[in-house]
Formats: sequence, structure tokens, C-alpha cells
Amino acid sequence: MRKVGFLVFDDVTMLDVSGPAEVLSRATDYELVYFSPTGGSISSNSGLSVSGTLIPDLELTKSLDTLIIAGSDALPGSPWPDGLIEAARILTTGTHRIASVCTGAFILAELGLLNGRHATTHWKNAQDLARRYPKIRVDADILHVHDGQFITSAGISAGIDLALSIVEEDHGASAAREIAQEMVVFMHRPGGQSQFTGAYSYSPASNSIVQKAISIFDADPTGEHTLVSLAHAVSVSTRHLSRLFQQELGITPARWIERMRLSRAQKFILDGFTISATAQHSGFGSDENLRRAFSRSFHMSPTEYRARFSSTFRTF
Amino acid sequence: MRKVGFLVFDDVTMLDVSGPAEVLSRATDYELVYFSPTGGSISSNSGLSVSGTLIPDLELTKSLDTLIIAGSDALPGSPWPDGLIEAARILTTGTHRIASVCTGAFILAELGLLNGRHATTHWKNAQDLARRYPKIRVDADILHVHDGQFITSAGISAGIDLALSIVEEDHGASAAREIAQEMVVFMHRPGGQSQFTGAYSYSPASNSIVQKAISIFDADPTGEHTLVSLAHAVSVSTRHLSRLFQQELGITPARWIERMRLSRAQKFILDGFTISATAQHSGFGSDENLRRAFSRSFHMSPTEYRARFSSTFRTF
Repeated sequence: MRKVGFLVFDDVTMLDVSGPAEVLSRATDYELVYFSPTGGSISSNSGLSVSGTLIPDLELTKSLDTLIIAGSDALPGSPWPDGLIEAARILTTGTHRIASVCTGAFILAELGLLNGRHATTHWKNAQDLARRYPKIRVDADILHVHDGQFITSAGISAGIDLALSIVEEDHGASAAREIAQEMVVFMHRPGGQSQFTGAYSYSPASNSIVQKAISIFDADPTGEHTLVSLAHAVSVSTRHLSRLFQQELGITPARWIERMRLSRAQKFILDGFTISATAQHSGFGSDENLRRAFSRSFHMSPTEYRARFSSTFRTF
Repeated sequence: MRKVGFLVFDDVTMLDVSGPAEVLSRATDYELVYFSPTGGSISSNSGLSVSGTLIPDLELTKSLDTLIIAGSDALPGSPWPDGLIEAARILTTGTHRIASVCTGAFILAELGLLNGRHATTHWKNAQDLARRYPKIRVDADILHVHDGQFITSAGISAGIDLALSIVEEDHGASAAREIAQEMVVFMHRPGGQSQFTGAYSYSPASNSIVQKAISIFDADPTGEHTLVSLAHAVSVSTRHLSRLFQQELGITPARWIERMRLSRAQKFILDGFTISATAQHSGFGSDENLRRAFSRSFHMSPTEYRARFSSTFRTF
């Protein structure tokens, strides 16, 4: 039996816990144990509670094979729940394999355990994670990433993908496959996390040159903006503008322009515009440019995007 | 506020409950109430418990807008938990909209509420549902089906798809989309439930003619079997053999032959055989026949199937 500990706390996102628990309880040899800073019953975000949680101590946790740290919508903000970091410190000490779901990555980051490593978190929080912990190599697109003994996973439902990858690691692909099929989920979903991002929002820029470049773009979002044209318009070198964008927004100007166009295109496609009209109104110009940008960012075509996100009912 | 009641019971599949609860608690105006035959705390299949459940009575349930009945791996078998059917009878009386997740459909079926309607359940249990309740039009492929006031959904994780469709019904597609994106799930997943089926197993045939036809196929699974060749081999008319297959297995002989070939092809593809070798060894003959059969049954190509189900890690 491998002992798998979950770290939970008040307002934890229930699916971050119940998704992996469903997967692991369907495999043969995992014993699931729930820990929380306070012990006892914990109430989750959805009103469902987790009862019988234990307060971690080094004696209890030394037999732990794997730790899974759940997330919460409130987690990146502060103050964090009392005792959470201390509980995580005890649980991660000497534990063979350490995983996080969604914003649970912030707890590992705060302990310094992800420094120099590849990691991911919910797409909404990826920019924040990268800014607050610049030594982490944040991949906002991937659904789960294994780096040494650490595994981090993307937003909420990605905890299921994470747990399947743990079962595959321990028992091989066919054991994981059987559970995926029973649970009616893919073993490997098409595309990454980026396809789930809605309208992109970056924190407002504090640098006045970046602010000016953004307002030039915003005034004419279908225009033919490039790094060169924006740098010219704000009277700095392309190299300087690139450096400022990276510092302020963590992204190159060219990529930022593409993200803004994609964000508009996503909206037009879901509003029922044709691919050609979308390409025109979002500043991509040609259908082909639109398709390439979609494929690069979302690993799917605009038509597939419409099929996945326009309705829960079959629309075409 | 719309009051949504969940019917849960001991050994309930936790994700059948927590999946929809996660969706609905992220929408603005649902109040979630949990009912069980015995009231109090209920322990789920994964060790997580649901506490504070109420015993249903007509007074309590008359304000219910929607009822969601969860499933359990044990549910289709008997005996069912004490009081479950009676609790469901009370909860379904006068309730505006009634939904089931996974094997929860068996409870609605037992109450006769799905007679004459389209319905679905976990792919593992679809044949059983159709046999035990022949008045239900069972669609084993779909992820959720709405028929009048009744909504049934496929296996386990399809409860999330179901709840998103309820949010879309009540608040429009963009409200549902925002929740899907937050939870990192599709609004409409590619394909249906059939793509998740593993090796197909039918209950053994009791009719000796059907048995004989099956053993002729099994002795040479790559052979060019057809309805005509099998009928000839067992010395009955094609019409008679078709009728016997339908009665015994709920499927036509041609479709049964295709399912058996697909089952072998799925295995070969996951074992790493090329598409051509798979087509040959599974009796499809040509790559094109294999592709067509995959597309018809799983709404994806053999290559896509490999990408979705060979590993939780990116393999190519």
C-alpha cells in the first residue's frame, strides 16, 4: 500500500481533492489520508466537507509516499489560512513525491521547493506565480508537469489528469487507462490549458512607455501593429520596448499583440461570426494567419474552438 | 435562488456529486441541498463523506427546482440501499427538472419515469439498462441527453457536462462557458461516450445459434465475416440470425462484428502497432475501413485515439 496524503484547508476547491481521490481510490494500492492545519472537518468551496482530517506531525508523515496539495480560489491572495505553510513544510519533509493541484502550487512556491524547476498552476494565476517567484519556470499551457520529485498541475479538473499520471508512473499505462475509461475522461486531453483561457487580462502596466504602446494598440486593435511600429510610435528602440514588455507583462510585444488579437477572435467566433469575418475584425487579416495563431496557442482550429466552447449542446 | 437537491447514499460515487456541485456552486444563484435515505453523514466510494444530508419529505421538497440523482458502481445490482427508491419517489414528485449522473439513471428507470424517453448511463451499464427497462430509448454514446423535464448523463465525469448544460439552460452559454474555463473543462467535449469504452464485453449468449455464430467468429477474428456468411455457417436465414442477435445482445450481427473488430483494433493501436498492421490484424482489411469504423463509433481517427489513450504523458 502506498500512503497518499492530501493537504486540505477551509475553502479548498472540492474538485481539486475529489478528482484525484476518485482516480486513486479506483487503483488498487493507495491508502488516502487527509491532513489539514487544524484537523477535523474542513468545509470546501462547494459546501461539501472533508471530515476526519489529521494534523500533520513528522511521525505521522514519515510513511508518506506521495503528497497532493489542493488549491483554492483564495489561495494566491493573502493572508493564507493559519498554519497552512507550516503544515505543508512538515508534510513535504522526507516525502518521496510531492504534487499540487491548481493554486496549490503557490504553497510549494512559498516553501522555495519549485525554484529552478518547471511548474504550472491555474491559467488565471500563472502570471502571478511567475512574478512572485521569478526562479520558477512557469509553463501556463501544460496540464501537468513532472520535474524531479515535484509534479504541479493546471486548474481544477487537471487534478484528475495529474492523478492518472501518478497511477501510470506507479502501475503502467494500462492501469491508468482502465480508470480513465471508467471515469469517462481522456488519458491525455487534446491541447493544453491555454485553450480554456477566456479573454486575456494582464495586470495594468505601471511603466508609461508600455502604457502608451498599449493605448496605441487599443485605439485601433485591427491595425497592422508590430514590434517595430509600436516602438516607433512611442519613440524607443525595439530592444528597449521588448525589455519593458517583458519586465511589465512577462511577454514579448509580438506575443502580446497576438494574445490581444486572439482574445478578440475568441469572442467573435463564439458570437457566431464566420472565420473570415473573425480574421478581419480581430486584426489577423487572413484566415490563414488566424488559423496559425489558433493552432500555435490553443492546439486547435478556430472551428474546433467553436465546437468546444460555444455551447454544452451540439450546435453543428 | 434555485434550490437544487442532490440524492446521495452510502457508497455513492463522489465525483458524481462533487463534479456537478463544483459547477453549480460557481454559478450565482443555486442553493445546494443534499438528501439521503437515512439523513446525516454519508460515506462515498472514495472515502470522502457528505455530511448534513436531509431525509426527504414532501414539505421539504416542494420548493425544489432541480433534483440530481448520483450513481454508484454498486447501483445496477441489487439489493439497493434501504429506502433509496422511496426517497427518490418523494424527491421526484412535483420537481420541475430531474437529472441523473452515471448509474443514477437506474433509479429513474425503476420509478418508470424514463419510459418512452431517450436516456443514457455509464457505457458499462448501458446494455443492462436497455435490457431491464426495454421502454427506455438508451443512447450509450451521448454524454448527456435532455428529454422533457428529464436529463440523464453518461459515466462519472459526465456529471460536470450535465451541470454545465443546466447552467446554460438557466443562464445562457456565456455563464456556462466562464465556469467551464475556470474549471479547465470543455463546454462540449469532442465525441461521445463510446470513445471511452475499453474492450467490449457482452453478456454470454444463452441461445445456441448465437453462441455458435460467435465461436465461428472467435476462431478466425481476422476473417471476412458478414451477416450472410455467419447465417450460412449456422444454417439459419439472415433475418432469423439478426432477430436472435438483437434479442440476445441488443445489437445487429453486422454491428457486433464491427464492435469485435474495433475492440481488437483499439488494443493493437495502444500496443504501438501501425495503422496498417492494425487494420490487417483486426480484420478491417484496409486502413480506410479501419478509419471509417473509428470515425463512426468514436468520432475520431485511430491516430487521435492513440494520442488520447496511450499515455497520460505526451508520446508523440
